[in-house]
Amino acid sequence: MKLLLRISYDGGAYHGFQYQTNAPTVQEVLTSAISAVMGFPCSVTGCSRTDAGVHAVGFCASVEPADPVSRGDSWCPIPTKRIPAAINSALPSDVAVTGALECTDNFHPRYSVLWKEYGYLIHDGEYPDPFTRKYAYCLRRRLTADAIRLMNEAAGKLIGRHDFAAFMASGSSVSDTTRNLMRLEAERLDERKVVVYARADGFLYNMVRILVGTLLDVASGKKTPDDASEILKHRNRNLAGSTAPAHGLCLYRVNYGAEIDFDK
Amino acid sequence: MKLLLRISYDGGAYHGFQYQTNAPTVQEVLTSAISAVMGFPCSVTGCSRTDAGVHAVGFCASVEPADPVSRGDSWCPIPTKRIPAAINSALPSDVAVTGALECTDNFHPRYSVLWKEYGYLIHDGEYPDPFTRKYAYCLRRRLTADAIRLMNEAAGKLIGRHDFAAFMASGSSVSDTTRNLMRLEAERLDERKVVVYARADGFLYNMVRILVGTLLDVASGKKTPDDASEILKHRNRNLAGSTAPAHGLCLYRVNYGAEIDFDK
Repeated sequence: MKLLLRISYDGGAYHGFQYQTNAPTVQEVLTSAISAVMGFPCSVTGCSRTDAGVHAVGFCASVEPADPVSRGDSWCPIPTKRIPAAINSALPSDVAVTGALECTDNFHPRYSVLWKEYGYLIHDGEYPDPFTRKYAYCLRRRLTADAIRLMNEAAGKLIGRHDFAAFMASGSSVSDTTRNLMRLEAERLDERKVVVYARADGFLYNMVRILVGTLLDVASGKKTPDDASEILKHRNRNLAGSTAPAHGLCLYRVNYGAEIDFDK
Repeated sequence: MKLLLRISYDGGAYHGFQYQTNAPTVQEVLTSAISAVMGFPCSVTGCSRTDAGVHAVGFCASVEPADPVSRGDSWCPIPTKRIPAAINSALPSDVAVTGALECTDNFHPRYSVLWKEYGYLIHDGEYPDPFTRKYAYCLRRRLTADAIRLMNEAAGKLIGRHDFAAFMASGSSVSDTTRNLMRLEAERLDERKVVVYARADGFLYNMVRILVGTLLDVASGKKTPDDASEILKHRNRNLAGSTAPAHGLCLYRVNYGAEIDFDK
């Protein structure tokens, strides 16, 4: 038996989810909180690395004893429904567990993913906003209804199963750069905020942020919606837009199919 | 001529608005940003002190040269509509000017106030939320529809012109503790958030936070709505609820009458 947790975190203070020897990570604080609460060393595996500064409201991570064989299948000393509150009592306030359920040993939080959905938040009000400054990219210009329509026209040309090599930052060792982008959509949330949703079976390094940077070039008229198809075709990172800042990005939801349902 | 500014700030890093010799304040960063942008020393007067850690989205402050006589009436070197952007360029990201207009020399940001409205944000979701942790009081229990109805029943007994001595923290030198409380109302914002609005011609020291603490005692059944009238009558701080934490409180709006309209 493994535990699967749903986790929210403000990524501002962390160098991403995945453990690093020389910088604070969400995996590190989570592993030590869970081990403290369980009373023995546990190991935590995330659904994604997430970049430094990126946030999450629907991150998923599995938990098992660091030494699973000696602990046996009923290793967890806490009833599943009480696990979020127990772990939250040991976590800093920028990380919170918001759901827990049991899953089988062959479940893997990364390999079992059907799709993940990110949201990229853009603040386009006339003035900067102290309250969203850490969670939204402050554009300092207005996204008109026309601009959002153009962004969605370009997005339509990127949706589908394609080679997204042009939308991958250098420094990645991935060989297969084909992904199925199921949703890419800009939507106005309120007078001052626009969100870009991006859903795929997997994402390349910095892919959402480069997609957003490219859509913002279309919004400003620097690129046309047709350029989006050309960028895809040429597989050239230099043709795509710049990488939008990390702090606007948030992992919204991970879908593992109907059996894994935290809200059930 | 004076300038009147509308200001938003995340109060988390400040010991309130008003200047203090030994702690960072909003007035201090605002005065130095404005003086830098204008090119000569300016003096800034706020509509309120606000407690340490309290936020604002509609704070108002007037600006004039520190030496008004020698500067004359057309002292401001920047067109009024460009003032917010100019000052924002010199401010830290947790303070932003969101409006500017001209007013007469006899206007005073504190004495000319008709009413001020605060909002107190309560997070009552099942789990803590990393994204609102600095802007909402995390209650760690649910406010049911019945509880909110009771809060509003108690609030109804406090609305009006009363002696609010029971709702003033000690340490204040105010002699007249009568205020006209025009609105006190709890309203559910979304699944996880409730806001308490408080509007009055003026507020005593910690008054909104003690009002909220008292309403929360009514919500939990520790007090009844009728107790609210008794607390008022006895003018005894010890009968009222505890002081709700500062970080849930935000100054929403200051009303100076129809002539002063930032959104015109």
